[in-house]
Amino acid sequence: MQARQALTDIQFLLTEVLQAPAQWQALAPFGDTDGELAAQVLEEAAKFVDSAVAPLQRTGDEVGCRFDAGQVHTPPGFRDAYQAFWQGGWPALACAPEDGGQGLPAVLECVLFEWLAGANHGWTMAPGLLHGAYECIKHHASDALKAQYLEKVATGEWLATMCLTEAHAGSDLGLVRTRGVPQPDGSARVNGSKIFISGGEHDLTDNIVHLVLARLPDAPAGPKGLSLFLVPKVLQDGGRNAVVCERIEEKMGLHGSPTCVMRFDDATGWLVGEPNKGLAAMFVMMNAARLHVGLQGIGLLEAAWQKASAYAAERRQMRAPGAKDTSLIQDHPAIRRTLHTQRAWIDGGRVLAYHTALQLDVAKHSTDAAARAAAQRWCALVTPVLKAALTDQGFHGASACLQVFGGHGYVSEWGIEQIVRDARVAMIYEGTNEIQAIDLLVRKVLADGGQGLAALLATLPGAAPSPAASARRHALVEITQTLAIAAQTDPELPYWVADDYLRAVALVLLDWAWGEISAVAQGERGSEPTQAPERWSTPAQALAQWVLPEFEMRAAMLRQRIAQALEIKPKMAATA
Amino acid sequence: MQARQALTDIQFLLTEVLQAPAQWQALAPFGDTDGELAAQVLEEAAKFVDSAVAPLQRTGDEVGCRFDAGQVHTPPGFRDAYQAFWQGGWPALACAPEDGGQGLPAVLECVLFEWLAGANHGWTMAPGLLHGAYECIKHHASDALKAQYLEKVATGEWLATMCLTEAHAGSDLGLVRTRGVPQPDGSARVNGSKIFISGGEHDLTDNIVHLVLARLPDAPAGPKGLSLFLVPKVLQDGGRNAVVCERIEEKMGLHGSPTCVMRFDDATGWLVGEPNKGLAAMFVMMNAARLHVGLQGIGLLEAAWQKASAYAAERRQMRAPGAKDTSLIQDHPAIRRTLHTQRAWIDGGRVLAYHTALQLDVAKHSTDAAARAAAQRWCALVTPVLKAALTDQGFHGASACLQVFGGHGYVSEWGIEQIVRDARVAMIYEGTNEIQAIDLLVRKVLADGGQGLAALLATLPGAAPSPAASARRHALVEITQTLAIAAQTDPELPYWVADDYLRAVALVLLDWAWGEISAVAQGERGSEPTQAPERWSTPAQALAQWVLPEFEMRAAMLRQRIAQALEIKPKMAATA
Repeated sequence: MQARQALTDIQFLLTEVLQAPAQWQALAPFGDTDGELAAQVLEEAAKFVDSAVAPLQRTGDEVGCRFDAGQVHTPPGFRDAYQAFWQGGWPALACAPEDGGQGLPAVLECVLFEWLAGANHGWTMAPGLLHGAYECIKHHASDALKAQYLEKVATGEWLATMCLTEAHAGSDLGLVRTRGVPQPDGSARVNGSKIFISGGEHDLTDNIVHLVLARLPDAPAGPKGLSLFLVPKVLQDGGRNAVVCERIEEKMGLHGSPTCVMRFDDATGWLVGEPNKGLAAMFVMMNAARLHVGLQGIGLLEAAWQKASAYAAERRQMRAPGAKDTSLIQDHPAIRRTLHTQRAWIDGGRVLAYHTALQLDVAKHSTDAAARAAAQRWCALVTPVLKAALTDQGFHGASACLQVFGGHGYVSEWGIEQIVRDARVAMIYEGTNEIQAIDLLVRKVLADGGQGLAALLATLPGAAPSPAASARRHALVEITQTLAIAAQTDPELPYWVADDYLRAVALVLLDWAWGEISAVAQGERGSEPTQAPERWSTPAQALAQWVLPEFEMRAAMLRQRIAQALEIKPKMAATA
Repeated sequence: MQARQALTDIQFLLTEVLQAPAQWQALAPFGDTDGELAAQVLEEAAKFVDSAVAPLQRTGDEVGCRFDAGQVHTPPGFRDAYQAFWQGGWPALACAPEDGGQGLPAVLECVLFEWLAGANHGWTMAPGLLHGAYECIKHHASDALKAQYLEKVATGEWLATMCLTEAHAGSDLGLVRTRGVPQPDGSARVNGSKIFISGGEHDLTDNIVHLVLARLPDAPAGPKGLSLFLVPKVLQDGGRNAVVCERIEEKMGLHGSPTCVMRFDDATGWLVGEPNKGLAAMFVMMNAARLHVGLQGIGLLEAAWQKASAYAAERRQMRAPGAKDTSLIQDHPAIRRTLHTQRAWIDGGRVLAYHTALQLDVAKHSTDAAARAAAQRWCALVTPVLKAALTDQGFHGASACLQVFGGHGYVSEWGIEQIVRDARVAMIYEGTNEIQAIDLLVRKVLADGGQGLAALLATLPGAAPSPAASARRHALVEITQTLAIAAQTDPELPYWVADDYLRAVALVLLDWAWGEISAVAQGERGSEPTQAPERWSTPAQALAQWVLPEFEMRAAMLRQRIAQALEIKPKMAATA
């Protein structure tokens, strides 16, 4: 992927459509960050991504990571690129200046990581959890731990991991068995095995800071007995801690990222935050982490789109309808439909993701309690939708782009099949997409009988919606209300329809995003209309014709299942 | 995949639902093939697939094919399995007895190849085109060529390829440049390069028979100037022909099958069939070949389903709604929905595919001209639908099954990600799925103004459809009629909506198939109701709830685009 190719589009969406600089400048920490500075940062970021990270995409996949007696060798070039990355200050973009960071708005970091994922998803896994670890240490670690680790993690001089999953405890962290036993000197002895640890071991940095979920002695069973421990690879005295990488997994893709099985053998660690509050300490970062995964979906889809549209502009096969001679395949309707549909998702998805990133900062930094609450509501409700819908589209849209290549798409040489393989993981990690749907519907929407969602829809920024958009919003509110009623007699109901519900919300939000884009592109917001109006009108039409009709399908499926729940006895519903 | 696990289901669908033995016994060549004999054949086939081919699935992917100075080494065990395969008479199942075959109905060969693809798609590519080559040689080659090649190819002692694609000529075979120049001795000198030749070179058999599309000198440009040549790897005198494998492709999957770049350097060949009628000679086998690719989709989906349902029956995570303790994941509604939906496609897809295989034999062997014509109509209209819809579901359904594994699905160890990678190719080869849709709508349905499709729907076998099924059939006929009218003012229209149209037809057919299954399972056709009715009622419900609503979405998309074409000027439609 070429980040520079996306730069102009993204500048338009950020500054014209979202008026992002005005939004973040209203917050104290970003008062001095004007649009010009942000533009320079993005320009430099694009250069870095295109010159240092993107060229390692094929090597990362083909050579992959190598495991040798406990050590992990990353692919050629990965270490140099990472050293340039942290020394350039990129991991610290949105960290606080007092911690060695640059104090920029979260949305700029989001754009950077969207590009990095599109350029080289495997490499990007290494710094992917760094900001979350930084926030975790900043807000929960003792002063002594902070003195040793905060700046190293903020700047990315040391990388960090999140050690959650165990072989028998994947989606269900309540089953975690790793134990941490306090010692008289204030440290803890950590014992246990963790799997699926991205970057658990590697040669990119001199130290690795593991944040490990484990149980204190006599902790209650289940998720409320989990505590968080910081366990470094290398101890302060320079000695190696008892943290062992046992092997790395062979995977469908993401070969540039070592997925490690880690063993903690009486490893030395320190409690982070309060006993038995480990999940809470980690889940503070959950919205940001899930938003980043959604952005991986966009980045990978942009990468696939760039490849497919370049190929379609060069390859000639068959005559398009009405053509006199063999046509470029970009002139065939089936190809155009595929490419325009992906643009509808990429552009609209960006507006939603960047708006959410802005809300993360509002929720954190606004002085207005009502604004903070509204922003928190947005992030809570919209983040699982974006995580699921954008990673779904990342994979399925990349596969549609592969199809543009015909047989060549299946051959590794063109690089498109790697994108499809890499994109698949984002539907799984950071909470599977099915879990996102349950989080949205059961834990968030139904928890207040749908009031929060109704309020969010009623206060969507921008002009009055089109009649069709308005009808869909009303349908969604009405479905939510009947679903809340039906769920009282059939508690299984929400779990059957959560995916449909998430899709319906995603489509309503995407429609809103495109309303904003179209209004600005057509000059309805005071600025000049854009110079190439078809750049935005073409995907807007694709959205209306090929994407939004799914809403009515989901609504019909929801209504059918709700009606069934209201009619029949609860027990019977289980056989559906 | 365990073929034995699918055997009982398939027996029920073949003998109870489709009454297949009665259908094929009405045709002269199969008068002696009773249901008992067929059951024995399938029982033995399942044993062979499970014991000889399935165990090589992982090796095929991990070791893959190795290219070394023009030679291709297949993965360990592949040659032995292939030798056992042809010596057991399996490739010759549906070949004529006078050619060394067993003279069994095509549908039994279809079941065998469905299983083989599910057990080991890569290995199955080797004999995949053998039957097509057999038919091609049988019906078009000279007696002299037949004497040398027909029995070897019928029995599979020698494997065969189809050499169509060139670097610049993929979907558009009219661009083929390879040349064949007749020689005084009746042979021809063949020169050119071909790509994507599955099994172009390997160590499975002593000889390989290539069927090569090429141009005679002074042949007209385009597809009407293509002739077919038989070019063996080894000549009759035992000398090596000038056929060179230049390299094999690195691919997303299908590592057990060498995808070869082949060069013909003054190779010796012989014309098969008439000059400039090469495409016609090859396309005789097209329906059978496309049906086989659709069956690969079913086989791979069954393989993915078997893995996912076994995993879901063992893995415990989280409490299902209403449960008191950690549940098996098969009790979670999201997992059940995924598994039941795939069964709806597998079971219904089997009925459609097997019925089509029976029609292939009716079209060939019936003494009743009207029956032959009806069978030909079925095959012409339904084959592209099955090729596209079943391979689409093969990939997307396998990906849904991968999701059941959570993070483990992404790890190679479990074998599910291999199925997803292998399944992807079937959406591309043998005519991309977009080309299937255009074939269906433009070349077939609209060619007679939709009359053939309407006749097919009006004569679907079985009882009267349900009100919902009947409404969908009427909607499809109505849409077809308005589409035919609108296409006259907007010739681009069918190319924009061909995919939607194919999906709509696929769903109507799937609904018909399930009507047949349900009627028989419930004892409405005179036989006893099945002993475990939920085996069939559960996927039938999944079909109604989660699969068929797509029909209304496709219908809405079609109607919207048709209305647009009828309202606006033809030129404007191109900007959509």
